[in-house]
Amino acid sequence: MANTHQFPEDRVHYTWDKDPQPVLTIDSGDQVDFSTREVADDQFNKDSKTEDIATLDWAKVYPLAGPVEIRGAEPGDTLEVEILDLKPGSWGWMAILPGLGLLPEEFPDAYLRTFDLSDGESIHFSDNIKVPITPFLGTMGVGPANAEGQAIMPPGTFGGNMDTRQLTVGTKLYLPVQVAGAMFSCGDAHAAQGDGEVCVTALECPMQASLKFRLIKGKSIPAPQFQTAGALTPKVDHKGFYGTTGVGPDLMEAARDAIRAMVDHLSENYELEPKDAYLLSSLCVDLKISEIVDAGQYVVSALLPLAVFQEK
Amino acid sequence: MANTHQFPEDRVHYTWDKDPQPVLTIDSGDQVDFSTREVADDQFNKDSKTEDIATLDWAKVYPLAGPVEIRGAEPGDTLEVEILDLKPGSWGWMAILPGLGLLPEEFPDAYLRTFDLSDGESIHFSDNIKVPITPFLGTMGVGPANAEGQAIMPPGTFGGNMDTRQLTVGTKLYLPVQVAGAMFSCGDAHAAQGDGEVCVTALECPMQASLKFRLIKGKSIPAPQFQTAGALTPKVDHKGFYGTTGVGPDLMEAARDAIRAMVDHLSENYELEPKDAYLLSSLCVDLKISEIVDAGQYVVSALLPLAVFQEK
Repeated sequence: MANTHQFPEDRVHYTWDKDPQPVLTIDSGDQVDFSTREVADDQFNKDSKTEDIATLDWAKVYPLAGPVEIRGAEPGDTLEVEILDLKPGSWGWMAILPGLGLLPEEFPDAYLRTFDLSDGESIHFSDNIKVPITPFLGTMGVGPANAEGQAIMPPGTFGGNMDTRQLTVGTKLYLPVQVAGAMFSCGDAHAAQGDGEVCVTALECPMQASLKFRLIKGKSIPAPQFQTAGALTPKVDHKGFYGTTGVGPDLMEAARDAIRAMVDHLSENYELEPKDAYLLSSLCVDLKISEIVDAGQYVVSALLPLAVFQEK
Repeated sequence: MANTHQFPEDRVHYTWDKDPQPVLTIDSGDQVDFSTREVADDQFNKDSKTEDIATLDWAKVYPLAGPVEIRGAEPGDTLEVEILDLKPGSWGWMAILPGLGLLPEEFPDAYLRTFDLSDGESIHFSDNIKVPITPFLGTMGVGPANAEGQAIMPPGTFGGNMDTRQLTVGTKLYLPVQVAGAMFSCGDAHAAQGDGEVCVTALECPMQASLKFRLIKGKSIPAPQFQTAGALTPKVDHKGFYGTTGVGPDLMEAARDAIRAMVDHLSENYELEPKDAYLLSSLCVDLKISEIVDAGQYVVSALLPLAVFQEK
């Protein structure tokens, strides 16, 4: 019989390590309810300002709830994580963090904004821009093999900080078990994000998350996989999308060019300062690889859902 | 008053060149109806077999209909191309071409399949796999600056062989004019393709295309942009998507890993030979950059629409 567990709120870890002591041990089929902190571990609150970035203690970034041990899990198995429910907290933040993000040279200055999420429906980005809340956990992973004080920020084949926005309610995530007991952890929740998370933050927020775990013995996958329950952008599909492109021999530079063009497009057409255009791109613009095979010249597209703009 | 022109079917060119003689000269606001040849310039037909790839004359690949001169267009302007209508021919082909594509080492052997498109609705990939026809022109471009015998295959900031599947009916494409008269050409039509075109061919087919041109004087863009009329995958959104991922420090290699995992997933779960799984990935699997900012480890996802699988 499957059980539901409440993960204790005060138990977090800030690195991936081998042989961690599990906080909770469950059986395949069990559900765990988590209450995850925003990614800065309560160093920000709804009244925080840009100047608070300067005193951020990076050792406290990425507090993960975990690990959860799944009985019987061994390397070579696959762990299914079904995302049953996600409820963002009442506020969240976005920031430009100097030196990070896709365009660190264009945006060298720190910038922080906080947002009220209490209507539960949308993020009021500006008077005429509302982005639908589409929550997910930016970080979900099994314990990586041979980890020792491994930073949370880089993801890997074990999952972790994948920042993959399709991992929302209804999706089943598949993770390749790398250590005995699987040792699942999660955190870094986002109320919304575009494919790419280009400014390095999404809408960072606390989250109530209900996850159901199922162990698939003997099935091995090389990296995370997932199955969504439905359409990928159902809340913004009723209007069109505006696309910018980058074309060139390097996918990274093509992605930068596409986002540069999107920041310009947003600034010129929607009365946004470039730094807010960059934040909005991170929040709702999706990076696609349109073409990856044509004689060494590739196309990356950045797609903006026009449904986020309200009629004036 | 806007006019509609019929572009002559017998006028094609196989390279981009400077100062070409326009086949047709039109005014801003005019419509042109094109009948484009499949990308191999009638070297294949509906009875073609894999062995016909060996004798392919590459000098005849990429026959483009054009150029069309737009009166008054000058470098620094933008050309809007509204895609009014697209009607694929009655058949098409897909192939693995040795040395090309995202996974040339895994798929070293030539392979060609032809498909009947005459129902106008879907591509019958196998007994239980149907991919909705979602046509677009793989190549639409203005004349590139300073071109001399420039190959069509690599796209550029002038557009060209962008293979961007969002350029379907209802979309408005914006191209940066680089030469006097704009000198627009098009061809390389696809009945369907996923973001990426991973095996190097889409569903290649002849196409009837109606395009409307509008010159935007004095507006300059760095690379192609576009606006879609609606949702991006409306024909396959009624079921979920299966995603595979690649995670690592190089976007190209992460994309390869995501497609390798997708080929394995399709082969293991849907009774497809790997070469057909690769073709199907090129036809309907979308590559997304899920995360491009996390400590030098990036996530590329490959998303398969489950709606292509018919209930047995």
